[in-house]
Amino acid sequence: MTKLVEDIETRIGPIEVFIFNIGANVPCSILEETPRKFLKIWELACFGGFLTAQAVARRMVARERGTILFTGATASLRGAAGFAAFAGAKHALRALAQSMARELGPKNIHVAHVIVDGAIDTAFVRESFPDVYARKAYDGILNPDHIAEAYWFLHGQPRDAWTFELDLRPWGERW
Amino acid sequence: MTKLVEDIETRIGPIEVFIFNIGANVPCSILEETPRKFLKIWELACFGGFLTAQAVARRMVARERGTILFTGATASLRGAAGFAAFAGAKHALRALAQSMARELGPKNIHVAHVIVDGAIDTAFVRESFPDVYARKAYDGILNPDHIAEAYWFLHGQPRDAWTFELDLRPWGERW
Amino acid sequence: MTKLVEDIETRIGPIEVFIFNIGANVPCSILEETPRKFLKIWELACFGGFLTAQAVARRMVARERGTILFTGATASLRGAAGFAAFAGAKHALRALAQSMARELGPKNIHVAHVIVDGAIDTAFVRESFPDVYARKAYDGILNPDHIAEAYWFLHGQPRDAWTFELDLRPWGERW
Amino acid sequence: MTKLVEDIETRIGPIEVFIFNIGANVPCSILEETPRKFLKIWELACFGGFLTAQAVARRMVARERGTILFTGATASLRGAAGFAAFAGAKHALRALAQSMARELGPKNIHVAHVIVDGAIDTAFVRESFPDVYARKAYDGILNPDHIAEAYWFLHGQPRDAWTFELDLRPWGERW
Repeated sequence: MTKLVEDIETRIGPIEVFIFNIGANVPCSILEETPRKFLKIWELACFGGFLTAQAVARRMVARERGTILFTGATASLRGAAGFAAFAGAKHALRALAQSMARELGPKNIHVAHVIVDGAIDTAFVRESFPDVYARKAYDGILNPDHIAEAYWFLHGQPRDAWTFELDLRPWGERW
Repeated sequence: MTKLVEDIETRIGPIEVFIFNIGANVPCSILEETPRKFLKIWELACFGGFLTAQAVARRMVARERGTILFTGATASLRGAAGFAAFAGAKHALRALAQSMARELGPKNIHVAHVIVDGAIDTAFVRESFPDVYARKAYDGILNPDHIAEAYWFLHGQPRDAWTFELDLRPWGERW
Repeated sequence: MTKLVEDIETRIGPIEVFIFNIGANVPCSILEETPRKFLKIWELACFGGFLTAQAVARRMVARERGTILFTGATASLRGAAGFAAFAGAKHALRALAQSMARELGPKNIHVAHVIVDGAIDTAFVRESFPDVYARKAYDGILNPDHIAEAYWFLHGQPRDAWTFELDLRPWGERW
Repeated sequence: MTKLVEDIETRIGPIEVFIFNIGANVPCSILEETPRKFLKIWELACFGGFLTAQAVARRMVARERGTILFTGATASLRGAAGFAAFAGAKHALRALAQSMARELGPKNIHVAHVIVDGAIDTAFVRESFPDVYARKAYDGILNPDHIAEAYWFLHGQPRDAWTFELDLRPWGERW
């Protein structure tokens, strides 16, 4: 990761915003979950975030500027039957984000965590969950462009008024 | 309040955004707190929010549009020694906001709660807490214009991606 | 309240444990809630707790011993559609409990908050919600004696290991 | 783990209570943390809990009885500067506990999570942090026997009134 980030910055330029966005929402009964999958879900949704965000943060701290944004989910805040692996990974990612925000905020790095609570308008949802996708007709699933606007808003905040966490959900979503 | 809101709408026009922003941060030992002040702090910081937000919400619901924004504080999330009255009122206001968001979201009314965690650049802070105010030199207190930008962002969110809660604090603030 | 507590202590003896247990769970749409009922629910579920706990706390602090226990509910932690008044009052009571625990713990007064999440085996539930009461056959509602055991446990805790908050719910309850 | 649990039950008898108690509180700046240590802390404090609790839970579920207790810390609830790895692992363990409680409670398995917030009277604290250990004189650190009493209380709870989470801290601890 250190090498990857170095390559990107050498070829393109200093990274201003880093977004970690990997999902790993694979439900399973705790009685059936395999150690391999439990580990893999944590690697995808948390360890990957640590490795990449750390590599980027080291460069941002040296420059004393930058924004690091993590994507969370409802599972970041509560465990549920069948979601031990995913909820654990998302809780851990949120703890990483909060720890980084508290350590790096005073170094002028803005770290934030966005809790996306609802289905997103993607090919995956369209093909796998047509019933859910049908809610798009009345704005019942999240438009990725609108999620991006929230990330853009966070990146643009002046440093006297930084947000660490905000949630995003469709107007009719039960929560 | 019903009459006031009716008058405003008759004379000026339909209310698009309602912001409830009253503070009542008067600390006191729980052993010394007077019933009168305990009640008054709740009336200012919570009951006032209920009376005004309800009057506005009834009209917004009839029109099926509108934004209702409440201002919270760190005391919205935790009680502290010497802050029973204020924390109680702010907790209650947050519960009101959350209950309204859950009931009125599906009626197309966007209800949100902003947690302001830090001193604000006001005449009150400048005159009463000069040491705190001195942090302004390095963006250590919140600029009211930047708080307003967050409220403006919330009001502008498309309804497939509404935020209920976000926090705002200066970059160097301990939390 | 000051007079009542004084009378009790004069006639019976020093109060060792104080339990505040008043309910006020009266749901209503936020659009229909009356100011009178909103105020009354807060008075019952929060202001009453402040007045009585303060009167008792003053005497306990003078003696440097005592236990103060508050009863919470799911509504202490989250607002819900139709529960703005009750959730507000319960949130405020929890903030009171937390503020008192933080201020009075170092004065050797143990303050705790018990979140009861489920129906209780009472005449009220038996008569008004027979479907819920039927869960008693398989331990699906809380036995008041078992709630009392938790309060007794809290009162008996040695001061190097005090609990501020615990939840109680039937084994099959969804949460 | 499956084999270990099978051996224990064959040689000694059915496991009635399982307690997971491994610590891994090794602070480090997020800029200096090594991938190896980040992984190891998660393996110790979370993955180990998953592997052992799952192996025990499978047998308990078959018998329809048993208690599973996890030990948490302040880091289970909040990330702090220098504690990304530990807070992540403890957050993940709490999510595991909550997911198991929600899935296995209705199968008559009592799963709970105890948040220990303070130093414990151990050889490690006595030798490494003599200043902290000196608080023992006035009950300022947790006595392991008193922690054990809380676990015993949880194990003995009748199933109509189960606790998922409680905290334990010395009376004078700041929190």
